Amino acid sequence: MDYRILGKKNLTPVALKTMTEEERVQLCSELRDKILNTVSSNGGHLASNLGVIELTVALLSVFDYTRDKIVFDVGHQSYAYKLLTGRFEKFDTLRQKGGISGFPRISESEYDRFDTGHSSTSISAALGMARARDLKKEDNYVVSVVGDGALTGGLAYEAINDAGHSKTRMLIILNDNEMSIDRNVGGLSKYLSKLRYSSGYISAKATTESFLRKLGFFGRGLIRIIIAIKDFFRFLIYRKKPSIFEDLGLVYYGPVDGHDVKSMIKAMDAVKDVKAPVLLHVVTKKGKGYGHAERNPSNYHGVGPFDLVTGVVSSSKASYTKVFGSTLCDIAAQNRNVIAISAAMTQGTGLEDYSLKFPTRFFDCGIAEEHCVTMAGGLAVSGFTPVVAVYSSFLQRAYDEMISDVCFMNSHVVFAIDRAGFVGNDGHTHHGLLDISYLNSMVNMTVLSPRDYKDMRNCFDYAINKCEGPVAVRYPRGCSPFEATGALYDDPAECVLPHLSCGEGYDFAIVSVGRLAAEADKAVELLKEKGINGIHINLALIKPIPFKELIRMTNGIRNVFTLEEGIQSGGFGEAVIRGFGERNCTCRVYTFAVTDPMIRAASPAEQLKEAGLDAESVAEKISKTLGGL
Amino acid sequence: MDYRILGKKNLTPVALKTMTEEERVQLCSELRDKILNTVSSNGGHLASNLGVIELTVALLSVFDYTRDKIVFDVGHQSYAYKLLTGRFEKFDTLRQKGGISGFPRISESEYDRFDTGHSSTSISAALGMARARDLKKEDNYVVSVVGDGALTGGLAYEAINDAGHSKTRMLIILNDNEMSIDRNVGGLSKYLSKLRYSSGYISAKATTESFLRKLGFFGRGLIRIIIAIKDFFRFLIYRKKPSIFEDLGLVYYGPVDGHDVKSMIKAMDAVKDVKAPVLLHVVTKKGKGYGHAERNPSNYHGVGPFDLVTGVVSSSKASYTKVFGSTLCDIAAQNRNVIAISAAMTQGTGLEDYSLKFPTRFFDCGIAEEHCVTMAGGLAVSGFTPVVAVYSSFLQRAYDEMISDVCFMNSHVVFAIDRAGFVGNDGHTHHGLLDISYLNSMVNMTVLSPRDYKDMRNCFDYAINKCEGPVAVRYPRGCSPFEATGALYDDPAECVLPHLSCGEGYDFAIVSVGRLAAEADKAVELLKEKGINGIHINLALIKPIPFKELIRMTNGIRNVFTLEEGIQSGGFGEAVIRGFGERNCTCRVYTFAVTDPMIRAASPAEQLKEAGLDAESVAEKISKTLGGL
Repeated sequence: MDYRILGKKNLTPVALKTMTEEERVQLCSELRDKILNTVSSNGGHLASNLGVIELTVALLSVFDYTRDKIVFDVGHQSYAYKLLTGRFEKFDTLRQKGGISGFPRISESEYDRFDTGHSSTSISAALGMARARDLKKEDNYVVSVVGDGALTGGLAYEAINDAGHSKTRMLIILNDNEMSIDRNVGGLSKYLSKLRYSSGYISAKATTESFLRKLGFFGRGLIRIIIAIKDFFRFLIYRKKPSIFEDLGLVYYGPVDGHDVKSMIKAMDAVKDVKAPVLLHVVTKKGKGYGHAERNPSNYHGVGPFDLVTGVVSSSKASYTKVFGSTLCDIAAQNRNVIAISAAMTQGTGLEDYSLKFPTRFFDCGIAEEHCVTMAGGLAVSGFTPVVAVYSSFLQRAYDEMISDVCFMNSHVVFAIDRAGFVGNDGHTHHGLLDISYLNSMVNMTVLSPRDYKDMRNCFDYAINKCEGPVAVRYPRGCSPFEATGALYDDPAECVLPHLSCGEGYDFAIVSVGRLAAEADKAVELLKEKGINGIHINLALIKPIPFKELIRMTNGIRNVFTLEEGIQSGGFGEAVIRGFGERNCTCRVYTFAVTDPMIRAASPAEQLKEAGLDAESVAEKISKTLGGL
Repeated sequence: MDYRILGKKNLTPVALKTMTEEERVQLCSELRDKILNTVSSNGGHLASNLGVIELTVALLSVFDYTRDKIVFDVGHQSYAYKLLTGRFEKFDTLRQKGGISGFPRISESEYDRFDTGHSSTSISAALGMARARDLKKEDNYVVSVVGDGALTGGLAYEAINDAGHSKTRMLIILNDNEMSIDRNVGGLSKYLSKLRYSSGYISAKATTESFLRKLGFFGRGLIRIIIAIKDFFRFLIYRKKPSIFEDLGLVYYGPVDGHDVKSMIKAMDAVKDVKAPVLLHVVTKKGKGYGHAERNPSNYHGVGPFDLVTGVVSSSKASYTKVFGSTLCDIAAQNRNVIAISAAMTQGTGLEDYSLKFPTRFFDCGIAEEHCVTMAGGLAVSGFTPVVAVYSSFLQRAYDEMISDVCFMNSHVVFAIDRAGFVGNDGHTHHGLLDISYLNSMVNMTVLSPRDYKDMRNCFDYAINKCEGPVAVRYPRGCSPFEATGALYDDPAECVLPHLSCGEGYDFAIVSVGRLAAEADKAVELLKEKGINGIHINLALIKPIPFKELIRMTNGIRNVFTLEEGIQSGGFGEAVIRGFGERNCTCRVYTFAVTDPMIRAASPAEQLKEAGLDAESVAEKISKTLGGL
């Protein structure tokens, strides 16, 4: 496609404001084409971005992105915004090392107003910006764009509660597509459906639109007056009942068709100067304009490269996530106490099969990690064994609940922590680098970190069927560096003990955690070629550390190197150093861990290299350390 | 008072159910007397407990506490429940070492169903218990008792959203007293006022009450039928408009007078078998029955011993909290970028004066730590310096927001972390023992831990006026072991550098954090008497650790002991061990830190002793360690 409008060097706010209706239609079409082409080649978030193209064009037609502040909740829907704010030329580098991030990043552009990545933060951030504006007596607009899925997160509600009280002028665009990543759940979701399909919506569209069209310029003024007498407005023109948002103090306006740029511009123009927080309800369709994604938006949420014509995504291989899903099905078939819990990530965490096989023992609680954990605590004190499956970086939301509502009561809740370690192209907001550190500090918590699929199965068997108290099993995104195919289940009774790859009497030992076992194996090989002989020990059980076995296995070795894919502070390595010291071991312990948790988007292999945790870096540093002694 | 009813050995569920109306009135009076007498002597939570006496008696008249599950949100209002469920005899030990906890504890009684202490967890926990009941095909009732303050927490909303969707039978009692600890804020609070004072409420009380009285036994059946056709019920009998709770899928019922036992029993009886989550709105008065507390509930929230007749609380001395408040006022007078943020703890965090002096630069966001932090992030990227004042253990709620919405953007947000360390009689749910560990793992974060009031002022001056990026200043509850009175501000320009108490060439060094400087000083003295000479270094800046200075000061000393009031894993001590190792220091480093974070209620001094962090324990262990070498 020839990007006739999008390719223009000076796509200024004024240019966007003064476009004709036809030009805007053309621009939307160019944006859609560019996004489809880029994501089908680089991978990325597709369905959400296709859904907000018209919304973004409307936003930038009404607001001046150089002075107004638009905050995208989660941020995986900001591609059109990026393309329109100076990043068209570089857009081919999307999500690649050194390229354009898939999320808003203040370090990337002054027009990205807030780093996002985790759900439900935008209203809070926007309220802060609006309050700052008022204190500085400035007059820019502040807009939060938030999905209905993100509204199931408690943080969004806390922000609405505060905004509703504050009367600060700001605009919240509710991008209502009935989806977060999976289909939305919860009372709010049902309620939004009611709003969407209320007769008020339909008649409003019919009456107001034509009404305004006739009034032209004066229509806008009239709308403002009508808003001022908001009960009149609400009851007579738009809806018969006050909405939940009005109850919380917002001015509610909508719903508006989120693929009709003109209607949205009109609506935004009408509400932008209301001296109160306004919620504009916009109804969009995820995947809009690309049939495959419209039909299966979950499959095209975060997607790898795919064929644009057939929609076929490069076939997904075995992965830790899939092994978790099938393992849990096997265990739950035997153990009727198992209950799986997901925070709007049934598919992402590999629980689809489980949810179909055991529907009564499965709960999707929405984007609500805190509630998932505390609810699991309630199930656990009632005798069940809940398995909470959440991505590592999202579980950070439930840090306090894990401690207060599970660990303090020593309840048997199993945390299936997916995406532990580097996650690749999503970048630093999604890395799971903190879990070892925070789990280490939690009382009563057992922590397991399987290295491969067989280990996964053993760990979950151990965690669910043999442990007491809280247990976390952490595993990375993607497929195992070991045995990518083949038999997964060896001996289910096999104990969760260290993997010992060699004998004794060596120059050094590496004690690795999780999938880094593969790098450690390679590092040992590389050093052997140099005549340096090492031993590699991989631990599945990393808290409590089996010091007795570890000390026995490293007996007589003067230099021990720990290797983990997590932040150094409070990590496995620090625990080994302290533990060896307390036990009067005379060996020196060195840690390989992550010191910069903000390593940007790249492949996981590139990220491991950047962090110095790949085999070559490890071998080089060990060689240097031993040489320097 | 002669506890005629309360003192009975066998206050069984049946006895409670079959009491006469007069006996219940007498029982409430005895409970009130017992609570007032105990709290005036031991300290504790007064206003909240006085407010729910009638509610608790009604609950235990309708529900069977031996099989039904009643979960108290926060739990500081569970005294009447404890007195009625077998803990009358031991109640004099309330909040004392080895005594009855001030919060529900499953380890204390099988009738305490869930440990609480942090806000907004009860609906999630109760939903878990209700789902467990349904899966086990049992038929007990599950009740959550939650204040309107706790409803400003996002976790409560996440739970309501899930419950509203689930149709699980459970009862949520909204204990609406217009207060959390401070007066409530937010859109929801305004909305509840509307509900309370709506004409619907008044007419409902007038009509339904007499209506039911006439119908007697049949009234209950009728109510059930009416609930089944809930729109009819809602529109005709109680209210004209559907409530926000109905929008989220709950059955709303109320408001009911929370000091009228009979009305509440009737209401609970009517709704308990509804096959859906029901919210029963009960209006109570904090401090009910004790004039001083009714007039000033905030002053009698968590209170020390006081005079029952005059209501005079033993005069509160200087404290870290007060010094923070006055320091912030001084700094804010000079630095107009400062904005203070509180999570419903204006008084508790010492911000009352500030909030009066700088009302436009003060935001109380409700019990919503997550929103406080992200909103602060929005203010910070707009050029302001927000100071978020939260208790250490409550800040755990905002762990993810601190990382994602502040640290990743390296925003200059100052965290004033009160109650860091042992908190005394509130017990383990309120200890601030994790902050050093979690702050250590956060990228870009600077951490300061002042030892005394002068240090506090210097630290805040440094954090607010001289630092960039996120900074945390952590300080304990209560008064400083140093200079409890006297001039607080010495040299505002004084740098945040280590305090060095001695010279060089010693047997050992203690490196202490915060107020433990006092214990370290004493330990050095005690050991000197034994002929062991030590040096004591106290660091105010604990992240990044000033290793250069620390190594210079400990140069030549073979044994270094770190001393901190926080969890060992990921703490200051571990960081020193690793840092010294990386710098090839040959000294041995031992850590004094907390290994059991669940040390129960006692005085802070007793807790320090139990943790082995008091001067005597430290001296003894150092002596043993050095002797054993």
